[in-house]
Amino acid sequence: MPYFDAASSAPLHPVARQALLAALDEGWADPARLYREGRRARLLLDAAREAAAETVGCRPDELVFTPSGTRALHDGIAGALAGRRRAGRHLIVSAVEHSAVLHAAATHEAGGGTVTEVGVDRAGRVAPDAYVTALREAPEPTALACLQSANHEVGTVQPVAETAEVCAEAGVPLLVDAAQSLGWGPVDGNWSLMTASAHKWGGPSGVGLLVVRKGVRFSPQGPADERESGRSPGFENLPAVVAAAASLRAVRAGADAEAERLRGLVDRIRARVPELVPDVEVVGDPERRLPHLVTFSCLYVDGETLLHELDRAEFSVSSGSSCTSSTLTPSHVLRAMGVLSEGNIRVSLPLGTPAAEVDRFLELLPGVVREVRGRLGAPEPARPAAREPAAETAVETAGPELVVDSLGKRCPIPVIELAKVIGEVPVGGVVTVLSDDEAARLDIPAWCAMRDQEYEGERPAERGVAYRVRRRT
Amino acid sequence: MPYFDAASSAPLHPVARQALLAALDEGWADPARLYREGRRARLLLDAAREAAAETVGCRPDELVFTPSGTRALHDGIAGALAGRRRAGRHLIVSAVEHSAVLHAAATHEAGGGTVTEVGVDRAGRVAPDAYVTALREAPEPTALACLQSANHEVGTVQPVAETAEVCAEAGVPLLVDAAQSLGWGPVDGNWSLMTASAHKWGGPSGVGLLVVRKGVRFSPQGPADERESGRSPGFENLPAVVAAAASLRAVRAGADAEAERLRGLVDRIRARVPELVPDVEVVGDPERRLPHLVTFSCLYVDGETLLHELDRAEFSVSSGSSCTSSTLTPSHVLRAMGVLSEGNIRVSLPLGTPAAEVDRFLELLPGVVREVRGRLGAPEPARPAAREPAAETAVETAGPELVVDSLGKRCPIPVIELAKVIGEVPVGGVVTVLSDDEAARLDIPAWCAMRDQEYEGERPAERGVAYRVRRRT
Repeated sequence: MPYFDAASSAPLHPVARQALLAALDEGWADPARLYREGRRARLLLDAAREAAAETVGCRPDELVFTPSGTRALHDGIAGALAGRRRAGRHLIVSAVEHSAVLHAAATHEAGGGTVTEVGVDRAGRVAPDAYVTALREAPEPTALACLQSANHEVGTVQPVAETAEVCAEAGVPLLVDAAQSLGWGPVDGNWSLMTASAHKWGGPSGVGLLVVRKGVRFSPQGPADERESGRSPGFENLPAVVAAAASLRAVRAGADAEAERLRGLVDRIRARVPELVPDVEVVGDPERRLPHLVTFSCLYVDGETLLHELDRAEFSVSSGSSCTSSTLTPSHVLRAMGVLSEGNIRVSLPLGTPAAEVDRFLELLPGVVREVRGRLGAPEPARPAAREPAAETAVETAGPELVVDSLGKRCPIPVIELAKVIGEVPVGGVVTVLSDDEAARLDIPAWCAMRDQEYEGERPAERGVAYRVRRRT
Repeated sequence: MPYFDAASSAPLHPVARQALLAALDEGWADPARLYREGRRARLLLDAAREAAAETVGCRPDELVFTPSGTRALHDGIAGALAGRRRAGRHLIVSAVEHSAVLHAAATHEAGGGTVTEVGVDRAGRVAPDAYVTALREAPEPTALACLQSANHEVGTVQPVAETAEVCAEAGVPLLVDAAQSLGWGPVDGNWSLMTASAHKWGGPSGVGLLVVRKGVRFSPQGPADERESGRSPGFENLPAVVAAAASLRAVRAGADAEAERLRGLVDRIRARVPELVPDVEVVGDPERRLPHLVTFSCLYVDGETLLHELDRAEFSVSSGSSCTSSTLTPSHVLRAMGVLSEGNIRVSLPLGTPAAEVDRFLELLPGVVREVRGRLGAPEPARPAAREPAAETAVETAGPELVVDSLGKRCPIPVIELAKVIGEVPVGGVVTVLSDDEAARLDIPAWCAMRDQEYEGERPAERGVAYRVRRRT
């Protein structure tokens, strides 16, 4: 039963399990107490902090354990912003950060702060220059900048060291969300704050890391608490902390070799999927990327059904398609990249994934996609359909323009209907798609780019939005 | 090696350990995901929520899991206050709440809210009438009231049901911190919010509970997050949550019988300690109390040394004495009660404590106290010393008044010096103790009450504070 969603949560590493068991017996007491059970707990906590700090590459007193990566981000961003409140209230984040960062930014904005969201290219990568611009054009002095070490949905590695340099020159601390990369290696460069999450590297749930470099102004928010240097309230989750530190060290010991091996498997997926499945877009930076993660989107496929069919075939993957999110909007990462979101699949391989599982996935995938497309009445692969529109599609001819009414229809139907009628208009003619599905905003332009048609933009319609596409080929 | 500090953290219950192990294998995936590992995690989470809700006596959708009892209190108080911001910004807490509540209250006050701290009697118990008064005399409409189910330091059970009634009549929600009592039984009465902490009942660390009754206005603060109904951000600590729910149920199944047994052991301590050790004050309500917890204070003893000596004798207890706190102030609970803080010992028995361990503690304690007192040059027990002051004590005779300069000396020295010289002045004469030790403020009046001397109050001195005591016997 291949589990290909390590980026959501990695299976527990054997070393984590072993350390957790040992610490359950030794580490249940309050490390703040003076008696032997407390002292023993304190020793375990101190040793875990030292081990984690060494692996991270910081001083032990710069690192605290939090209850999760999300809490590390929330508390870290709030503390850094408050610590520099006198300097300014401007926050810079990239558009492809984890939602915990974007939610913290929204809270900051709601509280009167200002936020700049730095865009990314089609590979999901920020340009360090964009941070220079954001710093220069900030509406007020910048208190903090945030950048992930690598993107959690498409695997693109960000230019953290260069961005940290740019920020340092401006005297602005950079917080790096290293959740996806810390198991693979330390975060390079002159960053000021760092966060991570243990269950992403094979540690237990219930443990995040927050590192605040000496000299960085930091003012913890919320009610005071003396634990974890006052930076993370609540009784320490000690057995899990011990397991987190031990497993990080263990994972790192084999990281280079395993990265190379998984990179090979991911290369295979990146190369083979477009060969095996027509109308696929592999997204994310092809070179500067996490070793174990690849994301692609399949035209004319409904992501939820695809996930379901893969699950039936015993492959567990995740998706950034709108139909798989509770809000029915596509992933903010894919939106920021401006790439196709329909039929989106993220494969993230856990440590030790056998090559045979990847091969089986590649064997299965084409049939699964074909089957889902067939069910949805998708057009023939890779050729704009030049046949009659399907009976249920309302097509109106208005001079040289066709209007497709896809109102009330969900991704991928609007794109399928567009693809079916584009052959109806002459080259130079226009198809307008009426849609009230959020995914259409992303997927219609993405389809045009993939199909070499001309996307002319959107305008509000009486109901929904009208998307104009001019036939070019 | 008897561990008598269950109120800090209970040893892990065997059922918790077993459930945790099982859930490590089954529950590491993201319960928000649609594939089988995610669905399995979701089933475990749902089952844990149902089990916990049933034991608590609430609906499953009223209960969320938090990373700790402290976070449950911080987030619960903030959410309840924000949910009723339009009603008012007044918060009522008792003076003997857990520091997490008092810190949340301080944060509320710093943010412009108002707080009333309701006092307690010498047994540490609040009067429901005091909440009536606090509600009536509030500077603005009250948004929330907080009351613990039972005190964590002295074991006194609070009149929660009556207080909830009083609050309900005023239309004010009552938040009950049930951290110390939830293992023993559900919280009675018409409360609105409830919090608890798993490691207090033998569950793992890393899990708290926050219950918000349907109909209670609640507005989570901080950055948004979709997990746990938006009330507790961050990836669920699922194995620990499963262990918490299972162990709560297991602990409850045997709670009545074990409560009766431990109550017998605690009764023995309550009765025997004052017989075996002179100059001891047993504090906390003798009847309305937790079954497993007893606290007493020993005159003329330094709490830290006492703890250390008991630890050497292999007994692990905690203390509210100033010398055992990082701030060098006595426990706020003992202060609010106005009882002696020096030589303070809290004994809280874990489930299954053998009677023989309690007997051994009672055998050992008198010798340990005697030895520490001897080392500190404490006066003879239970008789005000009528002999020469020790050479190192500076005594000045000023008419009918003696001044003892205890500046720079820490608890219990100021009280020892007072006790040594009280016989120097005639009945009706006055001893003034100069002290800059925070504990003196509590312990000098407490000594007067225990010794039937008249405490005349304090006034600022050139250095420190002058405490006046008039000899009565």
